[in-house]
Amino acid sequence: MHSLTSLFEAKSVAVVGASNDPHKLGGRPIAYMKRLGYAGQLIPVNPKSDIIQGLPAKRSLADLDSPVDLAVIATPGALVEKVIKEGIENGIKNFVVFASGYAEVGAEGDAKQQQLQELFKNTDARLLGPNCLGFINTETQLIGSFTTAMEENPLKAGGFSFAGHSGALGAYWLDKTIQADIGVSKWISSGNETNVQLAEIVEYLAYDQQTKVISLYIEEIRDADKFEQALLVAQQQGKPVIALKGGKTAAGALATKAHTNSNALNGVDYQAIFDKTGVIEVDSLSEMINYAKFYIQGHTLQGKKIGIVSISGGAGVMLTDQLENAGLSVSKFSPKLADEMRPHLSSFSTSQNPVDLTAAMVAEPQMLPNVTNMLVDSNEFDAVVIFMGLMGSIAERLTEGLLQLEKKPNCPVLLIWMGGRKELLSTISDNGTMVFEEIPELVSLLSKLN
Amino acid sequence: MHSLTSLFEAKSVAVVGASNDPHKLGGRPIAYMKRLGYAGQLIPVNPKSDIIQGLPAKRSLADLDSPVDLAVIATPGALVEKVIKEGIENGIKNFVVFASGYAEVGAEGDAKQQQLQELFKNTDARLLGPNCLGFINTETQLIGSFTTAMEENPLKAGGFSFAGHSGALGAYWLDKTIQADIGVSKWISSGNETNVQLAEIVEYLAYDQQTKVISLYIEEIRDADKFEQALLVAQQQGKPVIALKGGKTAAGALATKAHTNSNALNGVDYQAIFDKTGVIEVDSLSEMINYAKFYIQGHTLQGKKIGIVSISGGAGVMLTDQLENAGLSVSKFSPKLADEMRPHLSSFSTSQNPVDLTAAMVAEPQMLPNVTNMLVDSNEFDAVVIFMGLMGSIAERLTEGLLQLEKKPNCPVLLIWMGGRKELLSTISDNGTMVFEEIPELVSLLSKLN
Repeated sequence: MHSLTSLFEAKSVAVVGASNDPHKLGGRPIAYMKRLGYAGQLIPVNPKSDIIQGLPAKRSLADLDSPVDLAVIATPGALVEKVIKEGIENGIKNFVVFASGYAEVGAEGDAKQQQLQELFKNTDARLLGPNCLGFINTETQLIGSFTTAMEENPLKAGGFSFAGHSGALGAYWLDKTIQADIGVSKWISSGNETNVQLAEIVEYLAYDQQTKVISLYIEEIRDADKFEQALLVAQQQGKPVIALKGGKTAAGALATKAHTNSNALNGVDYQAIFDKTGVIEVDSLSEMINYAKFYIQGHTLQGKKIGIVSISGGAGVMLTDQLENAGLSVSKFSPKLADEMRPHLSSFSTSQNPVDLTAAMVAEPQMLPNVTNMLVDSNEFDAVVIFMGLMGSIAERLTEGLLQLEKKPNCPVLLIWMGGRKELLSTISDNGTMVFEEIPELVSLLSKLN
Repeated sequence: MHSLTSLFEAKSVAVVGASNDPHKLGGRPIAYMKRLGYAGQLIPVNPKSDIIQGLPAKRSLADLDSPVDLAVIATPGALVEKVIKEGIENGIKNFVVFASGYAEVGAEGDAKQQQLQELFKNTDARLLGPNCLGFINTETQLIGSFTTAMEENPLKAGGFSFAGHSGALGAYWLDKTIQADIGVSKWISSGNETNVQLAEIVEYLAYDQQTKVISLYIEEIRDADKFEQALLVAQQQGKPVIALKGGKTAAGALATKAHTNSNALNGVDYQAIFDKTGVIEVDSLSEMINYAKFYIQGHTLQGKKIGIVSISGGAGVMLTDQLENAGLSVSKFSPKLADEMRPHLSSFSTSQNPVDLTAAMVAEPQMLPNVTNMLVDSNEFDAVVIFMGLMGSIAERLTEGLLQLEKKPNCPVLLIWMGGRKELLSTISDNGTMVFEEIPELVSLLSKLN
């Protein structure tokens, strides 16, 4: 059992500062766990009420009949120390603290944070936070978080996990995975990291059975060796790691200091660690989500050779330029493939890569799956990219063609459909073909996979 | 009057190969001009009908009572030469040819194209195409094109113009301007450019009163001096030029050859020309549309100093890093500004750039316009960027705040609202604040403006 298992997989949880109002900080975790059916024991703690949101409540952690696995502390900062002391005295081993106003706000907060840290010194108790949004475990619907991102839509359970130094970015991540219909396993906001740090969380996720793809938002790498070690475990376990790194410039590092008291430019060469451990660095959450989709749909890119099928000559040209400039190869057809392809194309098309289907496809939509399958079957490419735009009244027929595409694990087919209709794109994506709106986002994805 | 005025501003037009079917190549231009109310005289030409789409038709160009300004030829390629001969003989000065199968398909087509070109040798008649999608002039609703992009939505008239070597990319451009609610002036697909070439078109647009912003898709620059000259005219006229360049790699140039018989790597140093004439090179149509919005909303960026207001500390960090890495400056507050700002922030925030509003803003939404206006008024920044994400139930109140923002011409405010609600974003955008979904697209825009 990993050192963080009893925290992230707690079978009983007390929420301290529990509120009857499901929209308040101390009300949200309870409301979420009630709604989603948390598989463990849930105990609200409030000094003034015996019933919170319909659940029997305790007046303090000292009143519990037996220690819970986890105490989620949603009280104001002034009460946090007292609550933790009480909890530790009563045998609780794991705490989450939401409150802000610690080392991220300067000298006074720094002292407060050291006092907090002190409480854990001679114990084996663990603390996530302070100044964090907590965590989510979809397996048991353990929602130790007050994030508003899942207020309207529930999370789908799946293999994509997140951990990071920004709760807000984490919340946007949740919203984006919900919009993209990607299943989530663990979601962890580590805040000021007084006790539980990102390296240990990464190690936990690397060993976690449910987690298939790990994504991170990193400000300070506090223990470079431990961090690298954890990433190596993820690599050994065959789990791709996708990372956003914050605080790469002097101005950015100044902002991380005010954000989570992170010393982002602490001399750790994060790029060397990423290179060594195969971490993919991205620039945005949207890009992160694209990689997750690629891996979760089961694709891999095993080489540089890309075949292109385009309805637009100009788009084929742009795609070719950008792929080539990104280090991929829009490689020439073998004479055999060129000969085989020719009869399937209009007389206005040249049998070469990229294949320009021209407007001839409008009269013969079957050309699209036929030509694409020929490229996939040729074994001359490591991936095939289709470019389409608009297509008006034949969009449905073309979608049917795209649903017929052969699936070969060593040659994924990716689709750019500019101005495509949302419902058709969803159908295609659900069928296991990745869909993009623009050329650069696809090129960026393939370039970093290689 | 410019050499291309009588083509692009024709006051009478014959459509040869006219069809009763509004979805056919020879039916679309007529159907569009009828629906939109072309301000000139429209004459269908069809050898077998006296009435086409309810309009009196002629049997051939020889049958016209007087020469029209423009003949749009929508016949199959085999008939094109005959029609043009007849047109020239009868005093017509401008032609558009849609048909493909010319130099872009190899030796046989090349001969065909030379024959076509021959017809114009000792005349002052002009030809747009062949292998093109024609053109649109929204001022008179002259639609010399069969593009399907405006089938569902009409074009809004305005100041954004496009010319380029790809009809399909042009069609996606039309769709994107319609979606982005940007008004269009001229839209021109130049195809194989046997006679009218891009340089001359750029010059026409540079002098065109209606055109305020020019966008281009360029494969081959055929006459470098003339092209540069035309771009200099645009610069002198204060018209920004935004360009996509196709065929920058050997593989890409091979594709342009098959596309529009363009020799994209013909030795012309397009980058030197762009640098000299202030052309902004982009990588996608979406990026092109962003620049158009920026200019059409009347913004300018006069320096490198960017102020940031963020609801997320992490997003503020990422934005800072990416702006700094792109050569912009997330510059420090003056001590005066830092002091003035402090009382307006929560005790968890540091009074520095980027400003992290923290969750305190949720309780006090007025903080957003107050802080933003302080940055704008400080005269310490050339632009202010706001980052927001989600915001659930207070999204409407925040939108009201954003609509109150001061407008200063030398300090545009730009907004990233991740996961923002579409209808609110539209309201904000209509009010003159540019809206983005992700950090990299905003950074890319600002970086190339500077």
